[in-house]
Amino acid sequence: MQDHADAALEAPLRIGVAGLGNVGATLVRIIQKDGEELTRKLGRKITVTAVCARSRSRDRGIDASNLEWFDDPVALAKSDSIDLFVELIGGEDGPALAAVKAALEIGRPVVTANKALLARHGVNLARAAEESGAQLGFEAAVAGGIPVIKTLREGLGSARIARVYGIMNGTCNYILTRMGNEGISFAECLADAQKLGYAEADPSFDVDGFDTAHKLAILASLCFGCEIAPDEIFVEGITSISQADIKVAGDLGYKIKLLGIAQRSADGIDQRVHPTLVPKTSAVAGVDGVLNAVALETDHVHELLLAGPGAGGPPTASSVLSDILDIARGTKVPPLGVPVAELTPYRRAPIREHEGGYYIRLNVRDVPGAFAAIATRMGAAGISLESVIQRPDLRVSEPGVTGTESRTVVLLTHSTMEQTVRDALQAIKGDGFIVGDPQMIRIEQL
Amino acid sequence: MQDHADAALEAPLRIGVAGLGNVGATLVRIIQKDGEELTRKLGRKITVTAVCARSRSRDRGIDASNLEWFDDPVALAKSDSIDLFVELIGGEDGPALAAVKAALEIGRPVVTANKALLARHGVNLARAAEESGAQLGFEAAVAGGIPVIKTLREGLGSARIARVYGIMNGTCNYILTRMGNEGISFAECLADAQKLGYAEADPSFDVDGFDTAHKLAILASLCFGCEIAPDEIFVEGITSISQADIKVAGDLGYKIKLLGIAQRSADGIDQRVHPTLVPKTSAVAGVDGVLNAVALETDHVHELLLAGPGAGGPPTASSVLSDILDIARGTKVPPLGVPVAELTPYRRAPIREHEGGYYIRLNVRDVPGAFAAIATRMGAAGISLESVIQRPDLRVSEPGVTGTESRTVVLLTHSTMEQTVRDALQAIKGDGFIVGDPQMIRIEQL
Repeated sequence: MQDHADAALEAPLRIGVAGLGNVGATLVRIIQKDGEELTRKLGRKITVTAVCARSRSRDRGIDASNLEWFDDPVALAKSDSIDLFVELIGGEDGPALAAVKAALEIGRPVVTANKALLARHGVNLARAAEESGAQLGFEAAVAGGIPVIKTLREGLGSARIARVYGIMNGTCNYILTRMGNEGISFAECLADAQKLGYAEADPSFDVDGFDTAHKLAILASLCFGCEIAPDEIFVEGITSISQADIKVAGDLGYKIKLLGIAQRSADGIDQRVHPTLVPKTSAVAGVDGVLNAVALETDHVHELLLAGPGAGGPPTASSVLSDILDIARGTKVPPLGVPVAELTPYRRAPIREHEGGYYIRLNVRDVPGAFAAIATRMGAAGISLESVIQRPDLRVSEPGVTGTESRTVVLLTHSTMEQTVRDALQAIKGDGFIVGDPQMIRIEQL
Repeated sequence: MQDHADAALEAPLRIGVAGLGNVGATLVRIIQKDGEELTRKLGRKITVTAVCARSRSRDRGIDASNLEWFDDPVALAKSDSIDLFVELIGGEDGPALAAVKAALEIGRPVVTANKALLARHGVNLARAAEESGAQLGFEAAVAGGIPVIKTLREGLGSARIARVYGIMNGTCNYILTRMGNEGISFAECLADAQKLGYAEADPSFDVDGFDTAHKLAILASLCFGCEIAPDEIFVEGITSISQADIKVAGDLGYKIKLLGIAQRSADGIDQRVHPTLVPKTSAVAGVDGVLNAVALETDHVHELLLAGPGAGGPPTASSVLSDILDIARGTKVPPLGVPVAELTPYRRAPIREHEGGYYIRLNVRDVPGAFAAIATRMGAAGISLESVIQRPDLRVSEPGVTGTESRTVVLLTHSTMEQTVRDALQAIKGDGFIVGDPQMIRIEQL
């Protein structure tokens, strides 16, 4: 039997928190408020003893009287007055990286909510943690309040993941949900999201899909044992999604969601982020607003769906705290699920070889023979069509073309290879019967 | 820093499995097949060394050549040849209880999938585990393949649960889903479920709600720190649900699901299992067929939904294995989340004081004044109505009454107290204007 009186696990756990923004201040408040209850549950006291933040004077609703203040996060990370370092500074390099590295190098456990840091330096940080025997927790870095990292690291036995997909960006999901519910444009929804604090002043990191790609790269590593490689992910954002797309998709039984998807393919791991037509009857279709969801398809467990808040102070702080409690209990897991030495290099599966159904929206010139030409091109490419829709209410205006000159046509293809679809659309464009660029949205079988 | 070379956590972990039914045999197969990969992930070998089952000759697709066979599960549980005991025998008493107790009493960790055992003896078994310092895992006992126990014990920081609810019986969910999709009767769906192996020959434990109550009692203990008290739960099954109920509920924007619900109330913990009208837009409404789902509403994390397979060999075995891996890693958590000494006695909140909306279906005699009498009784009781529906296609036949003599009326109330509704229905029945008993289904705000 094991020794149940491990002295190191009975001493109080002294926590240093770098970064006292919304999440950091909420975390300190929770630990100060719930300290006694946590001590009872753990059989061990946990306490925030030191913090690091730019301004000492700002009122954050925390009791700062017994806190040691640091100006330099690296100094805090290395200080002998703490046992665990929490990084909530943000940013993929700079002080966040320096402080996390400093802590791990001396064997000190680290908890972080920093997805950019993890996406960029996760493998090196996991290696540093393993070398010094330190734990590295990052539950809050992916899908804020949803315990998906814990589930992947500890909850699935030996089940192999076949596919992971999810809604991992609340800004995009909020925008797409409102476009669907209220029939308003992308631009209008974005402006509202910015007013409500759901979108940044510069929203491109979110709406162009890069935030989702960061999170997907981390998840994919845990799911498939591959290195974290956010730059290798195919990324398409939601800025081109129009009301017409949402409306026709709806009539055909689909919703449009920005999904991050990673799955095993013959060539490696297919990782992609793009707007996706998902069946209305699928579980992710019901995940609306700022909520996040991650679905794990495994051989043993079939599909597991975890849905909840993807951001916000209390849910994110709660995930940070659950990492802290695991470390306080002495739980030991390799940061990326398997030792870093066993990670396989990430082999990108080319998107052009992706196979699936496609939603295609074309502005077709209102001239005789146009439709026949399009149908001929699709047929020649061997693409079979599941649906063809042309309705007067689906007119999408294009610059330089007045409404009466073109009509909107939507095609839904059966499963085909992306390269084939792209070539066919190129040929259709070359024929001169369409105005502007075709819209192409991938359909995912869920 | 902690000692990272804990010798006890590097020795091979020898597992004894009692019960080689579907789950047990699947577990042994998985460990035999994935042994090397698990060793790599854990840095420690895990191996099944001994088993106990009624028949030694049955072909279970496992390699039995190196397994020590026991006829008596208690002897296996106490044997020096194992380090961890897995109980997959089933049954709330008898050999399962005896063997689990025997293992825990000598400080040997136990993993079980036995919800009946846990519901009935969970507090005593948790106490025995704490006294001897043994771990007790039971992830597979509630919602088979969904890691809800781990999430509650380790994943929520200090977040307080306000309400937990879920679909925890695949048989009932399968029946209700098919009734809704295909317009067929309860009896017909049940017969099909039995044919497909989704329902037992004697289905009453499932369809009368007791299986859900067992699981809810376990969850409620983990959520609210109360004792496990399955017999104190208000339980109503799904046998009275008619096509008319499903149809009208659907028209009003609801689906009918058998939910287990536990929430804090002024008087204690309100725990109940009953058919429930849930809004179609709610996440649980989308959980269909044999799937299970558990929703956790907390103060920090808002709502977390976990959905997946609730039963079946591979998902259940996978949950058993994840408990085994936690123990192999040395993870230590009190079985019920907090030490048994801190559990509070369960105070039942009386269902008669439950407040909520109600769906009421009445067979009203086709005589003048009947409807006025009903409306008067509801008004006198102070019950305000959200909807009143009477349609010729909603006729539900009652014994002794021909179709032309009565009409089906459905009322949806605003939030009111259950006792008030019951009294009003009693009075309405006394007036003699209705045929048979009223149908009453609770509506849950989700």
